[in-house]
Amino acid sequence: MIELKKIGIVKSTRKEIRDDNWDSEKSYIEIDSDQFDSTSLEGVSDFSHVEVIFYMDKVKVEKIITKSRYPRNNKDWPKVGIFAQRTKNRPNKIGVCICRVLKVEGCKLFLEGLDAIDETPVLDIKPWVKEFSPRGIQKQPLWISELMKNYWRTSE
Amino acid sequence: MIELKKIGIVKSTRKEIRDDNWDSEKSYIEIDSDQFDSTSLEGVSDFSHVEVIFYMDKVKVEKIITKSRYPRNNKDWPKVGIFAQRTKNRPNKIGVCICRVLKVEGCKLFLEGLDAIDETPVLDIKPWVKEFSPRGIQKQPLWISELMKNYWRTSE
Repeated sequence: MIELKKIGIVKSTRKEIRDDNWDSEKSYIEIDSDQFDSTSLEGVSDFSHVEVIFYMDKVKVEKIITKSRYPRNNKDWPKVGIFAQRTKNRPNKIGVCICRVLKVEGCKLFLEGLDAIDETPVLDIKPWVKEFSPRGIQKQPLWISELMKNYWRTSE
Repeated sequence: MIELKKIGIVKSTRKEIRDDNWDSEKSYIEIDSDQFDSTSLEGVSDFSHVEVIFYMDKVKVEKIITKSRYPRNNKDWPKVGIFAQRTKNRPNKIGVCICRVLKVEGCKLFLEGLDAIDETPVLDIKPWVKEFSPRGIQKQPLWISELMKNYWRTSE
Protein backbone atom coordinates (compact mmCIF):
# COMPACT_ATOMS: atom_id res chain seq x y z
CA MET A 1 0.00 0.00 0.00
CA ILE A 2 1.06 3.58 -0.72
CA GLU A 3 0.09 6.17 1.90
CA LEU A 4 -0.51 9.75 0.82
CA LYS A 5 -1.62 12.84 2.71
CA LYS A 6 -3.73 15.58 1.18
CA ILE A 7 -1.84 18.81 0.57
CA GLY A 8 -5.03 20.87 0.50
CA ILE A 9 -8.70 20.87 -0.28
CA VAL A 10 -10.89 22.02 -3.19
CA LYS A 11 -13.50 24.69 -2.50
CA SER A 12 -16.00 24.74 -5.35
CA THR A 13 -19.51 25.90 -6.20
CA ARG A 14 -20.05 22.33 -7.49
CA LYS A 15 -21.34 20.49 -4.43
CA GLU A 16 -22.50 17.17 -5.88
CA ILE A 17 -21.09 14.65 -8.38
CA ARG A 18 -22.09 15.47 -11.96
CA ASP A 19 -20.37 14.78 -15.30
CA ASP A 20 -20.72 17.96 -17.37
CA ASN A 21 -20.84 21.79 -17.45
CA TRP A 22 -17.73 22.38 -15.40
CA ASP A 23 -17.19 25.92 -16.71
CA SER A 24 -20.30 26.97 -14.74
CA GLU A 25 -18.34 26.61 -11.51
CA LYS A 26 -15.92 28.73 -9.52
CA SER A 27 -13.22 27.18 -7.36
CA TYR A 28 -10.05 27.54 -5.42
CA ILE A 29 -7.65 25.26 -3.57
CA GLU A 30 -6.74 25.98 0.01
CA ILE A 31 -3.39 24.42 0.88
CA ASP A 32 -2.98 22.84 4.30
CA SER A 33 -1.43 25.43 6.64
CA ASP A 34 -0.04 22.72 8.94
CA GLN A 35 2.35 21.55 6.21
CA PHE A 36 2.71 24.62 4.00
CA ASP A 37 2.57 28.39 4.01
CA SER A 38 2.15 31.13 1.44
CA THR A 39 5.79 30.70 0.26
CA SER A 40 4.81 27.23 -1.04
CA LEU A 41 2.72 29.01 -3.70
CA GLU A 42 5.36 31.64 -4.56
CA GLY A 43 5.84 31.96 -8.31
CA VAL A 44 2.72 29.97 -9.22
CA SER A 45 1.07 33.01 -10.78
CA ASP A 46 3.99 33.38 -13.22
CA PHE A 47 2.43 30.36 -14.91
CA SER A 48 -0.84 30.65 -16.84
CA HIS A 49 -1.88 27.11 -15.84
CA VAL A 50 -1.31 24.46 -13.20
CA GLU A 51 -1.90 20.73 -13.22
CA VAL A 52 -3.98 19.64 -10.22
CA ILE A 53 -3.89 16.03 -8.99
CA PHE A 54 -6.78 15.17 -6.71
CA TYR A 55 -8.39 12.23 -4.93
CA MET A 56 -12.05 11.64 -5.79
CA ASP A 57 -12.97 10.39 -2.33
CA LYS A 58 -16.74 10.39 -2.95
CA VAL A 59 -16.50 7.60 -5.55
CA LYS A 60 -18.01 4.39 -4.17
CA VAL A 61 -15.70 1.35 -4.17
CA GLU A 62 -18.39 -0.90 -5.66
CA LYS A 63 -18.61 1.38 -8.73
CA ILE A 64 -14.94 1.08 -9.63
CA ILE A 65 -14.26 -0.49 -13.04
CA THR A 66 -11.12 -2.60 -13.48
CA LYS A 67 -11.74 -4.34 -16.82
CA SER A 68 -13.85 -2.77 -19.61
CA ARG A 69 -17.26 -1.12 -20.03
CA TYR A 70 -19.21 1.18 -22.33
CA PRO A 71 -18.17 4.77 -21.49
CA ARG A 72 -21.00 6.40 -19.52
CA ASN A 73 -22.83 3.08 -20.17
CA ASN A 74 -23.66 4.35 -23.68
CA LYS A 75 -23.87 1.37 -26.07
CA ASP A 76 -23.53 3.66 -29.10
CA TRP A 77 -19.88 3.89 -28.14
CA PRO A 78 -17.37 1.01 -28.13
CA LYS A 79 -16.75 -0.99 -24.96
CA VAL A 80 -13.23 -0.07 -23.86
CA GLY A 81 -10.84 -0.79 -21.01
CA ILE A 82 -10.65 1.35 -17.89
CA PHE A 83 -7.28 2.74 -19.02
CA ALA A 84 -8.83 4.00 -22.27
CA GLN A 85 -11.40 6.05 -20.29
CA ARG A 86 -11.22 8.99 -17.91
CA THR A 87 -14.26 8.03 -15.81
CA LYS A 88 -14.07 8.86 -12.10
CA ASN A 89 -15.01 5.24 -11.26
CA ARG A 90 -11.42 4.04 -11.55
CA PRO A 91 -8.76 2.31 -9.49
CA ASN A 92 -7.17 4.78 -7.04
CA LYS A 93 -9.82 7.44 -7.86
CA ILE A 94 -7.21 9.94 -9.03
CA GLY A 95 -8.24 12.95 -11.12
CA VAL A 96 -5.85 15.18 -13.07
CA CYS A 97 -6.85 18.53 -14.54
CA ILE A 98 -4.97 21.40 -16.18
CA CYS A 99 -6.54 24.68 -14.97
CA ARG A 100 -6.05 28.38 -15.55
CA VAL A 101 -4.49 30.28 -12.64
CA LEU A 102 -6.58 33.34 -11.70
CA LYS A 103 -4.71 34.54 -8.61
CA VAL A 104 -2.95 33.50 -5.43
CA GLU A 105 -4.02 34.96 -2.09
CA GLY A 106 -2.03 33.66 0.88
CA CYS A 107 -2.72 29.92 1.01
CA LYS A 108 -5.53 30.07 -1.57
CA LEU A 109 -5.05 29.36 -5.25
CA PHE A 110 -7.99 30.58 -7.39
CA LEU A 111 -8.53 28.58 -10.57
CA GLU A 112 -10.70 28.37 -13.67
CA GLY A 113 -11.70 25.01 -15.16
CA LEU A 114 -11.13 22.60 -12.27
CA ASP A 115 -13.35 19.50 -12.59
CA ALA A 116 -13.31 18.53 -8.92
CA ILE A 117 -16.21 18.94 -6.51
CA ASP A 118 -16.26 20.85 -3.24
CA GLU A 119 -14.17 19.33 -0.42
CA THR A 120 -12.12 17.07 -2.73
CA PRO A 121 -8.69 16.32 -1.21
CA VAL A 122 -5.80 17.58 -3.35
CA LEU A 123 -2.67 15.41 -3.74
CA ASP A 124 -0.41 17.75 -5.72
CA ILE A 125 -0.23 20.97 -7.70
CA LYS A 126 2.35 21.26 -10.49
CA PRO A 127 2.99 24.20 -12.79
CA TRP A 128 1.99 23.49 -16.39
CA VAL A 129 5.08 23.56 -18.59
CA LYS A 130 4.73 23.49 -22.39
CA GLU A 131 7.62 21.01 -22.74
CA PHE A 132 5.34 18.43 -21.09
CA SER A 133 2.66 18.78 -23.78
CA PRO A 134 1.95 15.69 -25.90
CA ARG A 135 4.62 15.56 -28.57
CA GLY A 136 4.04 14.66 -32.23
CA ILE A 137 0.72 14.05 -33.95
CA GLN A 138 -2.27 13.55 -31.66
CA LYS A 139 -5.24 11.31 -32.30
CA GLN A 140 -8.24 10.20 -30.27
CA PRO A 141 -11.32 8.14 -31.13
CA LEU A 142 -14.56 9.85 -32.18
CA TRP A 143 -16.53 8.56 -29.19
CA ILE A 144 -14.49 10.52 -26.67
CA SER A 145 -14.86 13.76 -28.64
CA GLU A 146 -18.64 13.17 -28.50
CA LEU A 147 -18.48 12.39 -24.77
CA MET A 148 -16.59 15.66 -24.15
CA LYS A 149 -19.12 17.82 -26.02
CA ASN A 150 -20.75 19.35 -22.91
CA TYR A 151 -17.94 18.74 -20.48
CA TRP A 152 -16.84 22.37 -20.12
CA ARG A 153 -19.94 24.06 -21.59
CA THR A 154 -21.45 26.62 -19.20
CA SER A 155 -25.14 26.41 -20.18
CA GLU A 156 -27.18 23.32 -19.21
CA MET B 1 -4.30 9.23 5.25
CA ILE B 2 -5.21 8.13 1.74
CA GLU B 3 -4.29 4.55 0.83
CA LEU B 4 -3.55 3.69 -2.79
CA LYS B 5 -2.46 0.50 -4.47
CA LYS B 6 -0.19 0.40 -7.51
CA ILE B 7 -1.96 -0.63 -10.72
CA GLY B 8 1.27 -1.68 -12.39
CA ILE B 9 4.98 -1.10 -12.61
CA VAL B 10 7.32 0.80 -14.95
CA LYS B 11 9.97 -1.18 -16.80
CA SER B 12 12.61 1.20 -18.13
CA THR B 13 16.18 1.26 -19.40
CA ARG B 14 16.68 4.16 -16.92
CA LYS B 15 17.78 2.37 -13.75
CA GLU B 16 18.93 5.24 -11.54
CA ILE B 17 17.57 8.70 -10.66
CA ARG B 18 18.75 11.37 -13.11
CA ASP B 19 17.14 14.65 -14.23
CA ASP B 20 17.67 14.88 -17.98
CA ASN B 21 17.90 13.05 -21.31
CA TRP B 22 14.72 11.04 -20.99
CA ASP B 23 14.34 10.44 -24.72
CA SER B 24 17.38 8.13 -24.52
CA GLU B 25 15.27 5.56 -22.69
CA LYS B 26 12.83 2.83 -23.66
CA SER B 27 10.00 1.82 -21.38
CA TYR B 28 6.74 0.02 -20.86
CA ILE B 29 4.19 -0.38 -18.10
CA GLU B 30 3.15 -3.84 -16.98
CA ILE B 31 -0.28 -3.70 -15.36
CA ASP B 32 -0.88 -5.88 -12.30
CA SER B 33 -2.47 -9.15 -13.46
CA ASP B 34 -4.05 -9.78 -10.04
CA GLN B 35 -6.35 -6.77 -10.48
CA PHE B 36 -6.52 -6.36 -14.26
CA ASP B 37 -6.28 -8.25 -17.52
CA SER B 38 -5.67 -7.38 -21.15
CA THR B 39 -9.25 -6.05 -21.52
CA SER B 40 -8.32 -3.23 -19.12
CA LEU B 41 -6.07 -1.87 -21.88
CA GLU B 42 -8.58 -2.36 -24.71
CA GLY B 43 -8.88 0.75 -26.85
CA VAL B 44 -5.79 2.44 -25.44
CA SER B 45 -3.99 2.25 -28.78
CA ASP B 46 -6.78 4.27 -30.45
CA PHE B 47 -5.21 7.19 -28.59
CA SER B 48 -1.85 8.64 -29.64
CA HIS B 49 -0.96 9.50 -26.03
CA VAL B 50 -1.71 8.53 -22.45
CA GLU B 51 -1.22 10.38 -19.19
CA VAL B 52 0.68 8.27 -16.67
CA ILE B 53 0.43 8.99 -12.94
CA PHE B 54 3.20 7.36 -10.92
CA TYR B 55 4.65 7.24 -7.42
CA MET B 56 8.33 8.19 -7.18
CA ASP B 57 9.07 5.78 -4.32
CA LYS B 58 12.86 6.23 -4.47
CA VAL B 59 12.67 9.87 -3.34
CA LYS B 60 14.01 10.21 0.18
CA VAL B 61 11.61 11.79 2.71
CA GLU B 62 14.33 14.14 4.04
CA LYS B 63 14.75 15.65 0.55
CA ILE B 64 11.12 16.69 0.20
CA ILE B 65 10.54 20.44 -0.15
CA THR B 66 7.38 21.96 1.32
CA LYS B 67 8.10 25.69 1.21
CA SER B 68 10.38 27.29 -1.44
CA ARG B 69 13.84 26.75 -2.93
CA TYR B 70 15.98 27.55 -5.95
CA PRO B 71 14.98 25.06 -8.69
CA ARG B 72 17.76 22.46 -9.01
CA ASN B 73 19.52 24.63 -6.38
CA ASN B 74 20.53 27.02 -9.16
CA LYS B 75 20.80 30.56 -7.77
CA ASP B 76 20.66 32.06 -11.27
CA TRP B 77 16.96 31.22 -11.16
CA PRO B 78 14.38 32.70 -8.77
CA LYS B 79 13.57 30.97 -5.49
CA VAL B 80 10.01 29.65 -5.92
CA GLY B 81 7.48 27.59 -4.00
CA ILE B 82 7.19 23.82 -4.31
CA PHE B 83 3.93 24.21 -6.24
CA ALA B 84 5.67 26.37 -8.86
CA GLN B 85 8.20 23.56 -9.53
CA ARG B 86 7.98 20.04 -10.90
CA THR B 87 10.91 18.61 -8.90
CA LYS B 88 10.56 15.00 -7.80
CA ASN B 89 11.37 16.03 -4.21
CA ARG B 90 7.78 16.97 -3.47
CA PRO B 91 4.96 16.11 -1.07
CA ASN B 92 3.32 12.81 -2.07
CA LYS B 93 6.09 12.11 -4.66
CA ILE B 94 3.60 11.95 -7.53
CA GLY B 95 4.79 12.24 -11.12
CA VAL B 96 2.57 12.90 -14.14
CA CYS B 97 3.72 12.47 -17.72
CA ILE B 98 1.98 12.54 -21.11
CA CYS B 99 3.58 9.82 -23.28
CA ARG B 100 3.24 8.51 -26.81
CA VAL B 101 1.59 5.07 -27.08
CA LEU B 102 3.70 2.69 -29.16
CA LYS B 103 1.74 -0.55 -28.76
CA VAL B 104 -0.19 -2.74 -26.36
CA GLU B 105 0.77 -6.41 -25.94
CA GLY B 106 -1.41 -8.26 -23.43
CA CYS B 107 -0.82 -6.55 -20.08
CA LYS B 108 2.11 -4.47 -21.38
CA LEU B 109 1.78 -0.90 -22.61
CA PHE B 110 4.83 0.27 -24.58
CA LEU B 111 5.49 4.02 -24.39
CA GLU B 112 7.79 6.75 -25.65
CA GLY B 113 8.76 9.69 -23.43
CA LEU B 114 8.00 8.39 -19.94
CA ASP B 115 10.15 10.15 -17.30
CA ALA B 116 9.91 7.44 -14.64
CA ILE B 117 12.71 5.08 -13.67
CA ASP B 118 12.67 1.29 -13.71
CA GLU B 119 10.41 -0.35 -11.09
CA THR B 120 8.40 2.83 -10.36
CA PRO B 121 4.89 1.97 -9.12
CA VAL B 122 2.13 3.27 -11.41
CA LEU B 123 -1.03 4.78 -9.85
CA ASP B 124 -3.13 5.39 -12.96
CA ILE B 125 -3.14 5.52 -16.75
CA LYS B 126 -5.59 7.86 -18.50
CA PRO B 127 -6.05 8.42 -22.23
CA TRP B 128 -4.90 11.87 -23.34
CA VAL B 129 -7.87 13.83 -24.63
CA LYS B 130 -7.35 17.15 -26.44
CA GLU B 131 -10.29 18.76 -24.59
CA PHE B 132 -8.15 18.54 -21.44
CA SER B 133 -5.36 20.65 -22.95
CA PRO B 134 -4.62 23.99 -21.30
CA ARG B 135 -7.16 26.46 -22.62
CA GLY B 136 -6.44 30.06 -23.63
CA ILE B 137 -3.08 31.76 -23.80
CA GLN B 138 -0.19 29.94 -22.10
CA LYS B 139 2.74 31.54 -20.32
CA GLN B 140 5.59 30.24 -18.22
CA PRO B 141 8.67 31.92 -16.72
CA LEU B 142 11.98 31.89 -18.56
CA TRP B 143 13.80 29.89 -15.87
CA ILE B 144 11.68 26.79 -16.43
CA SER B 145 12.23 26.88 -20.20
CA GLU B 146 15.97 26.96 -19.44
CA LEU B 147 15.63 24.10 -16.93
CA MET B 148 13.80 22.00 -19.54
CA LYS B 149 16.47 22.47 -22.23
CA ASN B 150 17.98 18.98 -21.94
CA TYR B 151 15.06 17.24 -20.33
CA TRP B 152 14.05 15.16 -23.34
CA ARG B 153 17.27 15.50 -25.39
CA THR B 154 18.75 12.13 -26.35
CA SER B 155 22.46 12.99 -26.49
CA GLU B 156 24.39 13.63 -23.26
